[in-house]
Amino acid sequence: MLSPEVVAEARRRIAPYINQTPLLRSSLLDRWMQHEFLFKVEGFQKAGAFKVRGALNALVALKQRGVLPREIVAFSSGNHAQAVAYAARQLDVRATVLLPADASSIKRQASAAYGAEVIDTRTRAEAEAKSEALRSRGAYLLHPFDDDDVIAGQGTACFEALQAGVRPDAIFATCGGGGWASGTYLAAELLAPGTPVYAAEPATAADAARSYRGGRIVRLHAAPRTIADGARTLSVAERTFQYLQRLAGFFEIEEDDIVYWTQWLTHLLKTTVEPTSAVAMAGAAEWARSQPAPRRILVMLSGGNVAPETHAQIWARNALSTTPDRRP
Amino acid sequence: MLSPEVVAEARRRIAPYINQTPLLRSSLLDRWMQHEFLFKVEGFQKAGAFKVRGALNALVALKQRGVLPREIVAFSSGNHAQAVAYAARQLDVRATVLLPADASSIKRQASAAYGAEVIDTRTRAEAEAKSEALRSRGAYLLHPFDDDDVIAGQGTACFEALQAGVRPDAIFATCGGGGWASGTYLAAELLAPGTPVYAAEPATAADAARSYRGGRIVRLHAAPRTIADGARTLSVAERTFQYLQRLAGFFEIEEDDIVYWTQWLTHLLKTTVEPTSAVAMAGAAEWARSQPAPRRILVMLSGGNVAPETHAQIWARNALSTTPDRRP
Repeated sequence: MLSPEVVAEARRRIAPYINQTPLLRSSLLDRWMQHEFLFKVEGFQKAGAFKVRGALNALVALKQRGVLPREIVAFSSGNHAQAVAYAARQLDVRATVLLPADASSIKRQASAAYGAEVIDTRTRAEAEAKSEALRSRGAYLLHPFDDDDVIAGQGTACFEALQAGVRPDAIFATCGGGGWASGTYLAAELLAPGTPVYAAEPATAADAARSYRGGRIVRLHAAPRTIADGARTLSVAERTFQYLQRLAGFFEIEEDDIVYWTQWLTHLLKTTVEPTSAVAMAGAAEWARSQPAPRRILVMLSGGNVAPETHAQIWARNALSTTPDRRP
Repeated sequence: MLSPEVVAEARRRIAPYINQTPLLRSSLLDRWMQHEFLFKVEGFQKAGAFKVRGALNALVALKQRGVLPREIVAFSSGNHAQAVAYAARQLDVRATVLLPADASSIKRQASAAYGAEVIDTRTRAEAEAKSEALRSRGAYLLHPFDDDDVIAGQGTACFEALQAGVRPDAIFATCGGGGWASGTYLAAELLAPGTPVYAAEPATAADAARSYRGGRIVRLHAAPRTIADGARTLSVAERTFQYLQRLAGFFEIEEDDIVYWTQWLTHLLKTTVEPTSAVAMAGAAEWARSQPAPRRILVMLSGGNVAPETHAQIWARNALSTTPDRRP
């Protein structure tokens, strides 16, 4: 396991390239919930999500070790691809991103706009074969979460929040492959040791929650159906699982709740909130309701990249008619 | 006409109550458009729109003159009602807002959450009769734009942007009743005299543009159909028209363009952008295309309160497939 200190090192390493993202709150939400919620908003991060923190930390670390590759490859249907595209541009490295057929057009567009070569693939097998070919000509394949530097980089968001003086009673992060939750756990261990860190996952994609409860990694057989596209990973990695096992708990969130909190956070915070981010808030709301006294809760909002089709899906019905104090 | 100095006074007056909203930009947008765009984002203002600036300036000015009423009344289907509700709460004044049947549920909800009494009315005539009754018992009716203190207050947003050091070649604001555009004009006259201020209006609601070109106020006979709900006013006031006549020009924006820029600004800035705000950007984009050299353009984004039905309407089709550099 990594020493929590790596998060502070990562923060220093990537500081010149990233935004110190804002902490937002809503007095209306706090009044309705009778708790204090603080949101670290990674939608305002470069390339619109926390992912660029891990990608940059990995690339700058390679550079510092004198082994910066000429080309970097990423395979992702989500924010990792465009984060790698963005990070590579900062370091003058060529980026090639392999995007599966179900990747949204805006991820393709953003990756290309950041200067990456975009290769469309039909299947995962095809992507793996292509990335092997690229590797054999010297490219570096950056994994979205099974990588120590990536995990340390993802922790820098929570590190910033805690360094800004937030002293939460609990911290919530969504779990996909586990890099975000692991980094968040390390940051808490460094700056607020003992603070419980909870993960939340869509109920339809609860491989990590089941792994956590069973003590061994459970792997899904097919991509789960959830609006939270950042949590569609089939399984966590051994590397992330060691941190996930130390979390205070896992919440499994229904799709209705994901949409509910996506609408409410968009409405109250006036920021674009990915459904993947709303998963963490839904977990926080569930936990808050179980508490006997007012708590201060830090919710890590992973990003704000929402495809137009997803926007349409989010707003297909009105969830704002039920205020959070009246939610059953 | 007011002296531009009133905007500086208003800013001092309301400073304790408002947010200094951020200036945001998008490097992708600038690259695509070959101009520099700066956005003053009033979605991050208290109650989610610039309107609270005018309402607060009016109320605090009344208090300073020793005539703070016990009750304030507002009639509005838009952001003015909830701004008055918010402002009244800050000054411990009772607020009653009269909302017509077509006001969105979230405006009703927000007004009530800020502690206002909400009265639903079916017709404008009914609202006028009710507000007269309230006036006769000593309530103060605050007009959304036909009021000097309101106009001065609305100017404080542009004042902040210019005071932060922005030196734009042109400034764009959406025109509804004209308070926002008038205040913006006064702020520019104070801090960057001679800078052209342009207004933009939905083509289906272009009473102000026609008034501007004809030199006299044109009044619409029925509420215009536009997704930009903040620009559905039937006419400007004599009070605002004197400033509007000094603007550098008016742009009339098609509904398709309003939706296009609502989607793109949401996507690039990661903030909730009202269609009414996107009208100003559409005007700025049109002007920018006519320019022979790169310009720095300040776009005043009026607010971020979007009803769920409007979100659904905005995202009913995908406008993000055409990047701004390829927009005809």
